[in-house]
Amino acid sequence: MEDKKEEIQKEEENQKKEEHQKNKEKKEKKEKKEKKNKGEKEGPKGDAKAKVKVVKGARDFLPFQMAIRNKAFKIITDVFKKHGAVEIDTPVFELKETLMGKYGEDSKLIYDLNDQGGELLSLRYDLTVPFARFMAVHNLPSIKRYHIGKVYRRDNPQMSRGRFREFYQCDFDIAGNNYGKMIPETDVIKVVVEILTQLPVGGFNIKLNHRLLLDAIVNLSGIKDELYRAVCSSVDKLDKEEWATVKKELLEKGITEEQSEKLWNFVQLKDKPKVLLEKLKSNNELLANKKGKEALEDMGILFDYLEITGTDKYCTFDLSLARGLDYYTGLIYETVLTDTDKVGSISGGGRYDNLVGMFSGKQIPAVGVSIGIERIFNILEEKYKDSPDIRSVETEVFVAVIGKNLTKERFKVLNELWDNGIKAEILYNENPRMDKQMDYAVNNKIPFMVFIGENELKENKLKIKCMANSTEIMIERDKLIEEINKLKEKPELLKVEAKAK
Amino acid sequence: MEDKKEEIQKEEENQKKEEHQKNKEKKEKKEKKEKKNKGEKEGPKGDAKAKVKVVKGARDFLPFQMAIRNKAFKIITDVFKKHGAVEIDTPVFELKETLMGKYGEDSKLIYDLNDQGGELLSLRYDLTVPFARFMAVHNLPSIKRYHIGKVYRRDNPQMSRGRFREFYQCDFDIAGNNYGKMIPETDVIKVVVEILTQLPVGGFNIKLNHRLLLDAIVNLSGIKDELYRAVCSSVDKLDKEEWATVKKELLEKGITEEQSEKLWNFVQLKDKPKVLLEKLKSNNELLANKKGKEALEDMGILFDYLEITGTDKYCTFDLSLARGLDYYTGLIYETVLTDTDKVGSISGGGRYDNLVGMFSGKQIPAVGVSIGIERIFNILEEKYKDSPDIRSVETEVFVAVIGKNLTKERFKVLNELWDNGIKAEILYNENPRMDKQMDYAVNNKIPFMVFIGENELKENKLKIKCMANSTEIMIERDKLIEEINKLKEKPELLKVEAKAK
Repeated sequence: MEDKKEEIQKEEENQKKEEHQKNKEKKEKKEKKEKKNKGEKEGPKGDAKAKVKVVKGARDFLPFQMAIRNKAFKIITDVFKKHGAVEIDTPVFELKETLMGKYGEDSKLIYDLNDQGGELLSLRYDLTVPFARFMAVHNLPSIKRYHIGKVYRRDNPQMSRGRFREFYQCDFDIAGNNYGKMIPETDVIKVVVEILTQLPVGGFNIKLNHRLLLDAIVNLSGIKDELYRAVCSSVDKLDKEEWATVKKELLEKGITEEQSEKLWNFVQLKDKPKVLLEKLKSNNELLANKKGKEALEDMGILFDYLEITGTDKYCTFDLSLARGLDYYTGLIYETVLTDTDKVGSISGGGRYDNLVGMFSGKQIPAVGVSIGIERIFNILEEKYKDSPDIRSVETEVFVAVIGKNLTKERFKVLNELWDNGIKAEILYNENPRMDKQMDYAVNNKIPFMVFIGENELKENKLKIKCMANSTEIMIERDKLIEEINKLKEKPELLKVEAKAK
Repeated sequence: MEDKKEEIQKEEENQKKEEHQKNKEKKEKKEKKEKKNKGEKEGPKGDAKAKVKVVKGARDFLPFQMAIRNKAFKIITDVFKKHGAVEIDTPVFELKETLMGKYGEDSKLIYDLNDQGGELLSLRYDLTVPFARFMAVHNLPSIKRYHIGKVYRRDNPQMSRGRFREFYQCDFDIAGNNYGKMIPETDVIKVVVEILTQLPVGGFNIKLNHRLLLDAIVNLSGIKDELYRAVCSSVDKLDKEEWATVKKELLEKGITEEQSEKLWNFVQLKDKPKVLLEKLKSNNELLANKKGKEALEDMGILFDYLEITGTDKYCTFDLSLARGLDYYTGLIYETVLTDTDKVGSISGGGRYDNLVGMFSGKQIPAVGVSIGIERIFNILEEKYKDSPDIRSVETEVFVAVIGKNLTKERFKVLNELWDNGIKAEILYNENPRMDKQMDYAVNNKIPFMVFIGENELKENKLKIKCMANSTEIMIERDKLIEEINKLKEKPELLKVEAKAK
């Protein structure tokens, strides 16, 4: 069945592709003609220059941004490792067919590579499908892994809200058979809480729901199964839209007034996990529904574990949480920040028991979460803008020169520092000006300067300046490493305010 | 002039593209027909399964390989930081035209993205051109930066030799105006030496040459300038081929017998830097050539600096080193491993003073090096295969359970460990078997196991087992963190041999 469906889908897609190709060529020819008519040829200079740019929806990371990014990744990977996860990586591209039929409507956002002969490739859309493919290819029965990598979506970029066409995802997933109910889920929720309490993003709320509960609700509202996906995509908008708006959409999709009211009775419910659970447990209609009953049992087990691991207070049981993807089979969750409305959801995931099986034939249940770190970068960049804690250069000693033609002497000092593991640098000019050397050291918050001058050389000495308190000491030339290492042990000397000349 | 040339090139490429497109379509149609005739439709199962694979020329990183990769990256980035470099990142794709006209013949190896509307994109071919584009876009006058990222080439993959279609490059570049002669170059060579002495790759040899010297040699051999590139690409083969073979190629390219003999007199020369330099300095013909003279002066300055920084002993002055790329303007270098012939060059670079100017209009001289880390991964994987030093899981404490239905107790212990920053995990089964728990701890070289059982619970105690020496201690339940922290201070307890059950 599955294969038949895929076959039809493929056929359809091929047809679409061909059509698209034809249209494209027509368009290209037309554009060329138009350009010729307007006299808009390639170049010269002005034109060539205008095209020196970053690709739309993507971005460069400048040194300060990289320092922020590395800080955030360190916090995240440390949490992943604390929970015993291993790291993996996959290529940035997959076979086109690996991604096909996994993302529903969003498939149109996938970047395809040009057919230059050989395999047909696409850029990865997320890290979950490549993970499932990875499990199948390497024939692994179980894993707890994390994966940090860029993914690609031909979406409408909104850079200020942290929405890019090339962006990082940080994924943590647990896959394996015969695991206890809600045990891996508890681990995943704890990971999210640890990461978001350590990253300075302010308050956050983890919304929880269960795929089987959504199935039951749709069923109890008298809505046909084939409308499930459409209903969910409308319901999912309830965090931004009024019920009236969502209802209107539902009616347009063919839901009746009565069905929509029954649905509303459920999906408006949200509360502290155990409070809402108790309420739902008194709903006999729900308990009589097989899927509904199973979901409530699952949630009961989970909420006990969340209490024990101290994560329940960050969670809300929210029946309007539906998530876009179709492959979820159990618990689903999504995190929103509560102290800012600038960013949408910053993490999401759930249980997906059938995805690996789509590749390997062997079912390997899995549950995981993806952290949308770009939105967090924006918050951190704002926060650390003027902080002395973030340095993009880690240099400990700047070697300065007073006087001319002393480059060999500079290299001698520099080399001694390097060979003893001390981070050190010079300005690359032959005879750098003193003010330029000072500026460099100060702007880069370098804690120590070593000065070489004619006088120092004559007396076989060196001068060290501690930038934090502006003290200077004259030392014997052969005591350099010893002295620097002594100074490095004093933490108050290592933090230098920027631009405090 | 430059623009005119680019324009023509673009026009040619467009024509080629169109032709290629037409041919492709013909081919596709033909293939479809053939498939139909053979009855080779899509699917069923067997076919779908066969296509679950990693893209040709790319590879997944398994947890052990990731641990190796992270170890290598740490060594490399620590050296970059020691020399005061900042880190940057750029998108994986650039505008197609950004890459066009930068790689000569190799342009055919660039991956293009499908035209799905909007900008025409290509995957980056190296990190140098994106770096030049980065400098122009952000209008930076100078930088010393490193960049570690994947690059893409539609080359013929040779996985065993570390040649992939998706592979990492680790680049270190210094860009800026008015820098002293050979000062940044000295820094770059020192970076290469530090990295390759710290990575356990065995012996290595850094070949040095100078673009102006190559120009002079070609000139003195009586060869026309327009044959320069063709001559260099032949000469560059002298590390693998006999002179007779290279000579034959040169003659075919239109070089005369006499010219080739003159050329050979030069390009066969290689020796310790200062030895060959002295020899060349006695060549009056070379000294009379403006470029030759300048190159020898440069090399003289450099070799003094290399001596001071202790890198000269790793270097050879080798007149046959030509490097493929056309954008080099000064010193060029390439490193080969001397204890293995499995891998080719593992690092290369040089001075390229005009590349940034191609994007910004402002000339910013630059010099840099690229480390080809994939080849080093292969060597390291082999080396660390059975080493206890490489752990893909960093877990410190495995929480095991004796007896049934104690998952809540496990989560209590686990949570206490997590909340105190200790890396800890359990098996996710509801009632895991003791042998499975032992296996997991042993196979992952986890130094400590904590046991929870009915007896321990009754007496409010816990049992800790140190896996390195198999000692067991019974502790008070509320002393868990204290005890684990004490044990963690003993280094002899932290290293556990794998599979030493």
